[in-house]
Amino acid sequence: MTTKKLWQVDDGSELHPVIERYTVDDDQILDQELLGYDITATKAHAHMLQKIGILSKNESNKISETLDELLKKWQSGQFKIAKELEDGHSAIELYLTEKLGGIGKKVHTGRSRNDQALVMMRLFLKDKLKQVSAKLSKLDHAYLTKIKSVGDQPMPGYTHTQKAMPASVGMWLGAYQQAFTDTEKYIESATNMIDQNPLGSAAGFGVTLPLDREFTTKELGFQKVQDNPMYCGMSRGVFELIALQSLSPIMIYAGKFATDMIQFTMQELKFFALPDSMTTGSSIMPQKRNYDVFEIIRARAHEFPAHLVALQNVVSGVGSGYHRDLQITKSTTLIAFSIVLDTIEALTVCVENLRVNSDNLNAAMTDDLYAVAKINKLVEQGVPFRDAYQQVKKGLK
Amino acid sequence: MTTKKLWQVDDGSELHPVIERYTVDDDQILDQELLGYDITATKAHAHMLQKIGILSKNESNKISETLDELLKKWQSGQFKIAKELEDGHSAIELYLTEKLGGIGKKVHTGRSRNDQALVMMRLFLKDKLKQVSAKLSKLDHAYLTKIKSVGDQPMPGYTHTQKAMPASVGMWLGAYQQAFTDTEKYIESATNMIDQNPLGSAAGFGVTLPLDREFTTKELGFQKVQDNPMYCGMSRGVFELIALQSLSPIMIYAGKFATDMIQFTMQELKFFALPDSMTTGSSIMPQKRNYDVFEIIRARAHEFPAHLVALQNVVSGVGSGYHRDLQITKSTTLIAFSIVLDTIEALTVCVENLRVNSDNLNAAMTDDLYAVAKINKLVEQGVPFRDAYQQVKKGLK
Amino acid sequence: MTTKKLWQVDDGSELHPVIERYTVDDDQILDQELLGYDITATKAHAHMLQKIGILSKNESNKISETLDELLKKWQSGQFKIAKELEDGHSAIELYLTEKLGGIGKKVHTGRSRNDQALVMMRLFLKDKLKQVSAKLSKLDHAYLTKIKSVGDQPMPGYTHTQKAMPASVGMWLGAYQQAFTDTEKYIESATNMIDQNPLGSAAGFGVTLPLDREFTTKELGFQKVQDNPMYCGMSRGVFELIALQSLSPIMIYAGKFATDMIQFTMQELKFFALPDSMTTGSSIMPQKRNYDVFEIIRARAHEFPAHLVALQNVVSGVGSGYHRDLQITKSTTLIAFSIVLDTIEALTVCVENLRVNSDNLNAAMTDDLYAVAKINKLVEQGVPFRDAYQQVKKGLK
Amino acid sequence: MTTKKLWQVDDGSELHPVIERYTVDDDQILDQELLGYDITATKAHAHMLQKIGILSKNESNKISETLDELLKKWQSGQFKIAKELEDGHSAIELYLTEKLGGIGKKVHTGRSRNDQALVMMRLFLKDKLKQVSAKLSKLDHAYLTKIKSVGDQPMPGYTHTQKAMPASVGMWLGAYQQAFTDTEKYIESATNMIDQNPLGSAAGFGVTLPLDREFTTKELGFQKVQDNPMYCGMSRGVFELIALQSLSPIMIYAGKFATDMIQFTMQELKFFALPDSMTTGSSIMPQKRNYDVFEIIRARAHEFPAHLVALQNVVSGVGSGYHRDLQITKSTTLIAFSIVLDTIEALTVCVENLRVNSDNLNAAMTDDLYAVAKINKLVEQGVPFRDAYQQVKKGLK
Repeated sequence: MTTKKLWQVDDGSELHPVIERYTVDDDQILDQELLGYDITATKAHAHMLQKIGILSKNESNKISETLDELLKKWQSGQFKIAKELEDGHSAIELYLTEKLGGIGKKVHTGRSRNDQALVMMRLFLKDKLKQVSAKLSKLDHAYLTKIKSVGDQPMPGYTHTQKAMPASVGMWLGAYQQAFTDTEKYIESATNMIDQNPLGSAAGFGVTLPLDREFTTKELGFQKVQDNPMYCGMSRGVFELIALQSLSPIMIYAGKFATDMIQFTMQELKFFALPDSMTTGSSIMPQKRNYDVFEIIRARAHEFPAHLVALQNVVSGVGSGYHRDLQITKSTTLIAFSIVLDTIEALTVCVENLRVNSDNLNAAMTDDLYAVAKINKLVEQGVPFRDAYQQVKKGLK
Repeated sequence: MTTKKLWQVDDGSELHPVIERYTVDDDQILDQELLGYDITATKAHAHMLQKIGILSKNESNKISETLDELLKKWQSGQFKIAKELEDGHSAIELYLTEKLGGIGKKVHTGRSRNDQALVMMRLFLKDKLKQVSAKLSKLDHAYLTKIKSVGDQPMPGYTHTQKAMPASVGMWLGAYQQAFTDTEKYIESATNMIDQNPLGSAAGFGVTLPLDREFTTKELGFQKVQDNPMYCGMSRGVFELIALQSLSPIMIYAGKFATDMIQFTMQELKFFALPDSMTTGSSIMPQKRNYDVFEIIRARAHEFPAHLVALQNVVSGVGSGYHRDLQITKSTTLIAFSIVLDTIEALTVCVENLRVNSDNLNAAMTDDLYAVAKINKLVEQGVPFRDAYQQVKKGLK
Repeated sequence: MTTKKLWQVDDGSELHPVIERYTVDDDQILDQELLGYDITATKAHAHMLQKIGILSKNESNKISETLDELLKKWQSGQFKIAKELEDGHSAIELYLTEKLGGIGKKVHTGRSRNDQALVMMRLFLKDKLKQVSAKLSKLDHAYLTKIKSVGDQPMPGYTHTQKAMPASVGMWLGAYQQAFTDTEKYIESATNMIDQNPLGSAAGFGVTLPLDREFTTKELGFQKVQDNPMYCGMSRGVFELIALQSLSPIMIYAGKFATDMIQFTMQELKFFALPDSMTTGSSIMPQKRNYDVFEIIRARAHEFPAHLVALQNVVSGVGSGYHRDLQITKSTTLIAFSIVLDTIEALTVCVENLRVNSDNLNAAMTDDLYAVAKINKLVEQGVPFRDAYQQVKKGLK
Repeated sequence: MTTKKLWQVDDGSELHPVIERYTVDDDQILDQELLGYDITATKAHAHMLQKIGILSKNESNKISETLDELLKKWQSGQFKIAKELEDGHSAIELYLTEKLGGIGKKVHTGRSRNDQALVMMRLFLKDKLKQVSAKLSKLDHAYLTKIKSVGDQPMPGYTHTQKAMPASVGMWLGAYQQAFTDTEKYIESATNMIDQNPLGSAAGFGVTLPLDREFTTKELGFQKVQDNPMYCGMSRGVFELIALQSLSPIMIYAGKFATDMIQFTMQELKFFALPDSMTTGSSIMPQKRNYDVFEIIRARAHEFPAHLVALQNVVSGVGSGYHRDLQITKSTTLIAFSIVLDTIEALTVCVENLRVNSDNLNAAMTDDLYAVAKINKLVEQGVPFRDAYQQVKKGLK
């Protein structure tokens, strides 16, 4: 691979191919997905360079236009980061240089790939959290709609996977509805935590130029400047973690719902069903209808903590200052968001299509579920609770 | 072990000792630590039972007084949960029954050990998060004080563990100070997420009695009732996770500071030191001074994600409704808080006692650190950044 | 706390109490459990020192006798490591010095606490793996006995938690029996991996004395000397990990069996049961019989990977050479073994007491389970499998 | 997406696109990589079907030839699994049916996609473990070669990241060489654990046909039949875990070597170096040479435990019998092997190209490293170790 690196002097030296392949790995593929955020931040940086007099108005305009053009190409899938480039950051600078010559060579003034990656990921995180919130709203709506139509249906409440007390389909679905609504607030608070602009921290120690960090903060829509440049660098991966942590309850609750459904669709219970178009068959057993979708949701819920571990481990493994280790926080973050977004979508379709088998549910409302109600009757007649409990218990034997 | 269980009828049957030991495990030891929160919530529950007419004023008063007495005994270490009891919940009911006879038997009216454990843990979480915040304030203060006294001292900034650009002790310590200040906000948002009263959800499906949940919410100082009783149960472990997740950045930043210090106290750098009373020696090498405290902090930072995994795994492993699995979320939660509180305390002492070796730091401010500044000078003279970079780079060769 | 450290010169300096508490933590409690292994290895070290002429026969004998005496005290619970000591290693040296004066001061010749801890943990690991194997044999026996008595009973085989094909209690229990038998081999291979003597590596770089490492290897029953002293040090924690990894399948299979049992004991299936003395009741619902033991097994299975993460993370966090981080690998290792040993024991009791409800199992052997058998009949008549499948499937509709 | 499923009757019903996308996910991409193993096992299955009389010699030959043809296409990259197929298993059956009509429809006789996937993954695991071993041999060779050429060079041994005792480049590299050699044995023992043939277990409960499992065991080169069909199914993911666990020490030791190198290449030490073609520059700081390769190795070492968690969590989340959850164990396994193989390769190149800076190493051999040697001199003169220690220590002050 003939490489072209921003930091190489034209002296014929090349990076060892094994080392290059190992260190770059899938970074280009990830940057391909992230490029839009990088372009947006680069534009804001150029505008700021004009404001502080490094770029002329003309230079800034040309950079803006060229970046807009690049953004459009990227959005329509026409721009691919070339294999010989290290990353998306290099691709942008090279594109500008090829189109604009010397003007393009000015764009990296006052920044490093460190803060360039930081601000790109920050924009990505904010955008993805917003997407998660939007999908959660749809899920909430699906639960509420279903509760409205079938909420009154009685169903047994289980503890220890044993029938325990009377509940209702509305109480059961409502628990998830409230849980997911709370996770929206969690996502909002995570967003507030990370809504800080790291652009201008350069390689993690600032620069000797009078950058206007408030300017880019405003243009990029951040709540505030992330002040200390070493803190900017040190928050790489940590802010990703804060974002991903806010998704944990989503995956846990989705996994719990899937676990419930796998139990409640057993042939021995058949409380609920999905339409045939949402279940699968077997290559060998023709009689089977399997609820694979809930099994995959459950599996993703079990898998999810591993992504948090991966991220936290890599970040905890290094001190302050940039280390290349941090590069691999990107793939973990992208994968985790993708799992969560897909899971919410699949879950929403399941809730929307949930069918209630009233006959089976009604038949399941057996006498034993009302034992506590009997105790409480005695309690209201003045029998101390523990005595009433023992009395009812003896009666059951 | 002769056992006495709340749910046993006096018919001579006993729990198999292996099963009892395995299922109860260290639960008594944990409940011993948590008992105060359980007593406080039990008192609020009794007051509420009076309000809705289940207890008379006299009964409620007696229960209150007896619980106050129990609380004092527990606080002074005089009350230990008896080995033959299943848990702290049983201990409280038994204590009341022994002291007050039939009145004590009424206290469990309208609740289950499920919501009793839930509200106890909720109070514990809120209290511990508060303690963490208080300790973080002290740590912040230690950083600020140290920055005030030695912040201007120049020091090299490192990237890739290689000298990179000029920084200062103030920038370096300030990064941590800002990072820890942000974690205080994270803890506050986690507290807001979990500040909901689960008492009254009983076994996870409510009860047929007209409990006044707003009453206990107010008495216990919660922001609001956690409404759906199945959601109350389902949040067991999840709210613990939300609390612990807010501690992750603390451990990460503490680990990073420790990693920095292990590097900066190497004999080859000796930028900083701790007093002899804070370092240790070797049983075989008499010349050694070791910064063990930073190694333990680093180790705890690396270990910490495992506690989040333990918690998340157990919680993700079960559907809605109570499952005994959830019991073991207690030990993970208690251990994790203890690690974090101890780590902040140790770190604070280290920051307070940090000694700066100015001679070594000054000597380390070598020429190569100023290469970017040279580029920026050229940039200000109109040379495009990338050309200036190549020019300075060739000059270095 | 007034401390007494092996490395302190009597100059009045004391370790800062916060730092001491934080770095020592629960190390004394752990060493209390490990002391026997340390004493055994110390004895072998003393014998070797005699062999190479550092100790006289008389000195060696006195040390041996005193260590035997200490071992007995420890075994009978009469010896506790004093709070002011750093660890068990110091306790042993101090005990010898107090009893034998100058002779005791010679015992640390040619070793460091590093190799002392290494050899102690190595002996512990080998011993615990042996205990696990012994318990697994009992579990195997329980499965085989149960299979012999009830193995022929038909039961439905489930895939996707849906009834699939005919199976039998013997096939189901036999799967676990074969799985656990295989784990015994895994434990054996882990034992072989770690059966190497690190004693003599001192602080990780050997010593300038002509230690006879073959001698202690033979006396302590190791398969071979672990040669390179830096490798000895570097294997700290890694060999613990290899040991714990061999336990993973045990916990997974135990968790699967528990998950099966929680399903198969549902009121809707009741294929199996445990005696009342092995299930628990509810503090509020008098009608409940809960299989808590399987829930705790399942929870421990879900928790277990976290202990491997904790261990691997701490070990991966440091380069070669000793770091105090490694101290906290001890608690993880001890806890993990304790969980596994307890789980096997509880599981064995469950298998021994498993009751089969033949009526329910027979009733569950419904027609749909035989669909594949019908296909295979057609196949044996020459119909291609996929055509036979479609034919039977259409017939089912 | 118009789908074609093995289990679909031609009745116009289609799987819901969201459910299909979510449940299939990247399974086709993974199966594309695994297809060769599936083809090989399918061939053995066909041969066996002939042996027991289900296929005629002619049918078996035609299937064999067609599978050989498919294998060649796949190896040369000409065969891609069509997007509308569920998986590679379906692709193979469809290919045979398209080429051979009714004969192709017979190939699934007596097997399920469950045992088809099991045997495919088993062959994959064995093959990959072999590849890891081969790469480890090269790494060992690189270490031995380097030790031969520069092993005698003295270097300081570090504990607690502080200079401790004299060591040598040979001792340091030798520690890794011995460590990696031991991991080869670990891989061998893992291979022995999993070398069992699951083909013939069908959907996890066997079939009513007289399959000759010894025949396929021999043809596929397994050590033995994995007997109990439910155990076959239950070992899915567990055997993957056993394979991956054997790789853990590799990643730990690689991470430790990388951590050492990051320290030893600091500007303040410069004990070692890599050629310029193996280090990278900075986009902003022209003076930098960064050892990114070691940072990525370290990051991968920190990340690695997360893959074991992912695998173990998914497997622990389900009881016996097949569950779709198990599908996602494939991606984890493939990723983990890829990380390990790439890391060994990169590490080998680094060791081969390691440059030793003798001047810096010699200069680092300062007096303090010899304190233990001084003590041992006194010990050999008869001074008890602890007294000698205190004596030397006082002299150092």
